[in-house]
Amino acid sequence: MALPVTSVLWKDYVDDRAVQESDFEVSTSEIDPANLQDGEVLVELLYLSVDPYLRGRMRRMKSYYFIGPFESVKPLASGGIGLVKASKAAGFAAGDVVSGMLPWSSLAVLDQAAQGMLQKLEPSLLGSAPLSYFLGTLGMPGMTAWASIKKIAEPIKQGEVAFVSGAAGAVGLVAGQLLKNVYGCRVIGSAGSDDKVALLKQLGFDEAFNYKRVDTAAALKAAAPDGIDIYFDNVGGPTLETVLDQARSHARIVACGMISQYDLPDEQKYGVKNLFNLITKRIKLEGFIVSDYMAELGAEFGATMAEHVQQGKVKALEHTTEGIENAGKAFVEMMAGGNTGKAVVKVAAEDPFPVKQ
Amino acid sequence: MALPVTSVLWKDYVDDRAVQESDFEVSTSEIDPANLQDGEVLVELLYLSVDPYLRGRMRRMKSYYFIGPFESVKPLASGGIGLVKASKAAGFAAGDVVSGMLPWSSLAVLDQAAQGMLQKLEPSLLGSAPLSYFLGTLGMPGMTAWASIKKIAEPIKQGEVAFVSGAAGAVGLVAGQLLKNVYGCRVIGSAGSDDKVALLKQLGFDEAFNYKRVDTAAALKAAAPDGIDIYFDNVGGPTLETVLDQARSHARIVACGMISQYDLPDEQKYGVKNLFNLITKRIKLEGFIVSDYMAELGAEFGATMAEHVQQGKVKALEHTTEGIENAGKAFVEMMAGGNTGKAVVKVAAEDPFPVKQ
Repeated sequence: MALPVTSVLWKDYVDDRAVQESDFEVSTSEIDPANLQDGEVLVELLYLSVDPYLRGRMRRMKSYYFIGPFESVKPLASGGIGLVKASKAAGFAAGDVVSGMLPWSSLAVLDQAAQGMLQKLEPSLLGSAPLSYFLGTLGMPGMTAWASIKKIAEPIKQGEVAFVSGAAGAVGLVAGQLLKNVYGCRVIGSAGSDDKVALLKQLGFDEAFNYKRVDTAAALKAAAPDGIDIYFDNVGGPTLETVLDQARSHARIVACGMISQYDLPDEQKYGVKNLFNLITKRIKLEGFIVSDYMAELGAEFGATMAEHVQQGKVKALEHTTEGIENAGKAFVEMMAGGNTGKAVVKVAAEDPFPVKQ
Repeated sequence: MALPVTSVLWKDYVDDRAVQESDFEVSTSEIDPANLQDGEVLVELLYLSVDPYLRGRMRRMKSYYFIGPFESVKPLASGGIGLVKASKAAGFAAGDVVSGMLPWSSLAVLDQAAQGMLQKLEPSLLGSAPLSYFLGTLGMPGMTAWASIKKIAEPIKQGEVAFVSGAAGAVGLVAGQLLKNVYGCRVIGSAGSDDKVALLKQLGFDEAFNYKRVDTAAALKAAAPDGIDIYFDNVGGPTLETVLDQARSHARIVACGMISQYDLPDEQKYGVKNLFNLITKRIKLEGFIVSDYMAELGAEFGATMAEHVQQGKVKALEHTTEGIENAGKAFVEMMAGGNTGKAVVKVAAEDPFPVKQ
């Protein structure tokens, strides 16, 4: 018997402006499980992740080197959590929960190439945390924060001053909490609304400011009069320039994202004029992509971060949008800063593995 | 009996333009060795070093963090080699050869603070190489190249592609030869004249180009069609931007100097717009100042580089100006790219320790 499928397609590349809801299109179709071929699996989508890096794939040009632009018209794909409904492929069985790259479809038939981008979630993890956490704090954004600090900002001395921009986002929240509660830094965060700022302070950030209402240079000067040792950069552009001016000698800058620049054509991108600070202060500015370290550090991350969450050192916050048909809206809102914490789309009505109390 | 002294003073800070010969002033005075006080040494200047970093000290603002701006009117100071003529200070005796920070004076009385910026050259080194080499390949610029590659560019795989800008300068020449002859890289160099380019090719650079006559982006594309793994940056500005576009994944950039930007007021400095490459390609861009590593690596450097020079892996080239009275001219010419190799001022008529054959 054929099952109904809802997918989100997109219409065309967007190079030089913000992506809008009208760039996406909801489409319906059917899948008959009886038609599943050898080597294929049928996966029901439970949760979908929308992340800033996807913006790069909506451009015509190659953005991230390890992954090309999306092909137009096909469903989009991003991190997701799925439930295997049926399998004719080795390594997968009905009832398995998988995480990895999944199409924006409520139900999908995945070939072997697509299966290669999925991992099975250990059964012991099911019920240990909401499944959606494996898209956020316990997943790619959490590991991005954890591994980039480890690889670029370490060694860290207790009491060093860290600044996190985009601090209320999925990666920034984890980065700031790790720097504060695990590394013992004095942590300053910036975000784009007063509500987010209030939340950052609740979470234990020493200082937080709304960059839309106050001048970043003045706010940093007040919050860190002796300068910044570690900058976790999610935004790039003028904020990076300001930090270079206010960095201390031997500062480390994790170049994790530059969301302020993503929608601008090349000639309008912000030119950073004060890179000579890199020399006079012996600053390290280094880019990071988490996929480089999945094999090396994935297991250690999973165990370590689960412990941090359990001990309350890192609190997992989510911004949930209901329904696959709203995935485009969720992405657009996230790019505009509408989320506090991990932006997640809840696709299935019920989490089949609720958290055990 | 009083001895004649020639010094080079300078007139005032220069913030926003090239330094000119008329910014310096030659002055004469006398020193009577009989007046030497307890704790003082009398040093005859043999060789003087002029280096791009001095430009920063001629500015009103703090430039390099470890050292303030010059005080106006006093003689300038820079790296030099001197001969102790008389000493009433512990640790120094007549006949010692010293290297370190020396005033631009043919003869100078140095107090204990000034003595703290000098090291004695091991007697075993005297005659092993021209004394002036200890200002260049065997001195601060040589160690800058050697230690920054070690600390920022390593690990280096044989066959990686390295680009050195300012490649005919004191640091660039050593960096390029090390990358080629010690690390086994394919090395591309840029310089500002056809003569320098010819010299780089003679020295074994795989490719070299005159950035004043050809387009840097096109020249790099032709010389390194698959991209650049290591960039040793002496110039900054648009050249750095071009390299970011043409860098390969996991490229390392040694930010050693940004001479293209030194004479510009802040608002005219070049804005680098493509820093997002740092993330997509996971590039490390890190600043370096050699004084951070003198204690840790100075001895290893001295032994290693002497061996490289002896084995012909690194050839020491010098551009010599005669006479302390021409030191200002030597600096101005060096900043305009008039030197090939280390710019040195020969102050004493004769090297008291000629090289033993």
